[in-house]
Amino acid sequence: MPQNRRFVLASRPEGEASAQNFRLETVETPALSDGQVLVRHHYLSLDPYMRGRMNEGKSYAAPQPLGEVMIGGTVGEVVESRHPRFAAGDKVQGMGGWQEWSVVDANQPGMLRKVDDSRVPLSHYLGAVGMPGVTGWYGLNRIIEPKPGKTVTVSAASGAVGSAVGVLAKARGCRAVGIAGGAEKCRYVVEELGFDACIDYREHPDLGSLSKALKQACPDGIDGHFENVGGMILDAVMLRSSAFARVALCGMIAGYDGQPIPLRHPQLILTNRMRVEGFIVSEHLDVWPEALAELGELVGSGRFRPRETVASGIEAAPEAFLGLLRGRNFGKQLVKLA
Amino acid sequence: MPQNRRFVLASRPEGEASAQNFRLETVETPALSDGQVLVRHHYLSLDPYMRGRMNEGKSYAAPQPLGEVMIGGTVGEVVESRHPRFAAGDKVQGMGGWQEWSVVDANQPGMLRKVDDSRVPLSHYLGAVGMPGVTGWYGLNRIIEPKPGKTVTVSAASGAVGSAVGVLAKARGCRAVGIAGGAEKCRYVVEELGFDACIDYREHPDLGSLSKALKQACPDGIDGHFENVGGMILDAVMLRSSAFARVALCGMIAGYDGQPIPLRHPQLILTNRMRVEGFIVSEHLDVWPEALAELGELVGSGRFRPRETVASGIEAAPEAFLGLLRGRNFGKQLVKLA
Repeated sequence: MPQNRRFVLASRPEGEASAQNFRLETVETPALSDGQVLVRHHYLSLDPYMRGRMNEGKSYAAPQPLGEVMIGGTVGEVVESRHPRFAAGDKVQGMGGWQEWSVVDANQPGMLRKVDDSRVPLSHYLGAVGMPGVTGWYGLNRIIEPKPGKTVTVSAASGAVGSAVGVLAKARGCRAVGIAGGAEKCRYVVEELGFDACIDYREHPDLGSLSKALKQACPDGIDGHFENVGGMILDAVMLRSSAFARVALCGMIAGYDGQPIPLRHPQLILTNRMRVEGFIVSEHLDVWPEALAELGELVGSGRFRPRETVASGIEAAPEAFLGLLRGRNFGKQLVKLA
Repeated sequence: MPQNRRFVLASRPEGEASAQNFRLETVETPALSDGQVLVRHHYLSLDPYMRGRMNEGKSYAAPQPLGEVMIGGTVGEVVESRHPRFAAGDKVQGMGGWQEWSVVDANQPGMLRKVDDSRVPLSHYLGAVGMPGVTGWYGLNRIIEPKPGKTVTVSAASGAVGSAVGVLAKARGCRAVGIAGGAEKCRYVVEELGFDACIDYREHPDLGSLSKALKQACPDGIDGHFENVGGMILDAVMLRSSAFARVALCGMIAGYDGQPIPLRHPQLILTNRMRVEGFIVSEHLDVWPEALAELGELVGSGRFRPRETVASGIEAAPEAFLGLLRGRNFGKQLVKLA
């Protein structure tokens, strides 16, 4: 059996996460038992939720145990199988973690899913046609529920989740307005993803300026908003919300020391009769088949061209993850493993 | 025709409202045209929404015009009718405004509604079996949607809206916990309205103390909350919210100078997958018949005994209104006019 290199959580961060919180180990891959499958990972997905799991504190998910392989989505190829539904050569998606190989008990439901990489490149099953894409799909279709002609805004619009929100909103006949950091990302959001406009928040360092930019980009007000960031962006969006606007809350940054950032004008929820709702996509497994089918068709037909930032080799995972937390990625952050 | 005393809005407040913003006038009641009804008001309702209408600023409702009779709900008796559906002696509810008499064009839909005061005292059609009661009904049944056994909290629990929320929540098999100002109000909330507990927020001047009191009163967390106040109360409730908690936003105070009061921990909406929704009951006329039927039955059968604070004579209206804004009323604030 092959040697497997993997990262375990070595220690919990005090404040910012650092490379020292992870430890690289090399171990033997165990021999397969009945019902097990050996998968060689081609790509590892890096996602913001992982930072939350590194903490010990109470959250909606259990913390990542110390000394165990870091949690993470993976796509790869079956190399050996002792399970009747999988054969060597199958392309599969699973939660293999930060490692090069995994031995999966394929009898457990949801552990391993065969995917078709003939129309959709394998890596996109970790992004646009995977968890981030379904996250955008759920927030847009089950919380914002936009009607054609309405205006939908989305923060972190060039990211794996935000790009899906915008492409899906356009497919529903909405005006889609992105918010992203930097001219290059904004250009991509408009020119390649097809948003109607994109605001570079770095050019608007204060609430008044950002709110004014939103007013120009959304002359009929904001009917729906998908929030990946929080803080000043959400404050500015709320100032431009229309009556009955819906906000899907998917991500909320904290201040430098981990303190919460207050919402400045909560009374707008009342005066504009808004609905603000938080969600976690893993609690809505019922929508995944429908969402993945639509996202797969959009990507397969070339109408949705997701962007990726790809680091090389398992040893690059910690720095790529820290870069993601600092917004250095452009689109979906991956690590290529094979 | 009788002489009519009425209050018009004389000026818009700068900061706090004052008695000088209103002007008492005495005018002749005009003779009736076809389709009109002359109503002698027995009670005028005073409600917090009136403060918003005194401002010029953009809001969800048009501002109260200067020099015109202040808007307000009324109940009274038909004295003369030139409309086939109304006869002298009928008890009616309408939006007669801050005056002793009104001439109503009864052909306009929704202007005047006959009510039965044989089981429900007339004044309650302005409170528990009127707009405040329906407000509580809507927020509880259409936003919070509580299941039996779940915990529902409500601020301003002894008020016209809050008392209805609690009585309805108990009728649905929930644990109802009130928040009110002062021992007398809390005693009423528990002993007469039947809430399971009531927290006196005056005994808990800081967030930590109020949050701790909520934890004791809601050992299984808070599943639904009806917010009439905002500010620190909402912050404390959010800290004790369960997963998937719902918040119906009905009232939000501002700071002393009219500045908004920030929401301290908006990230809890995400981590607890909460839904926070603002509403205005007048936009949901479809629920009124069902809500009024249930509230009328609860009051008529004696299971809901609403409290009222009654000022005497139209000339008392401005001071009674200012007292309401300062929380000096106990239950529904009315002015008795006849």
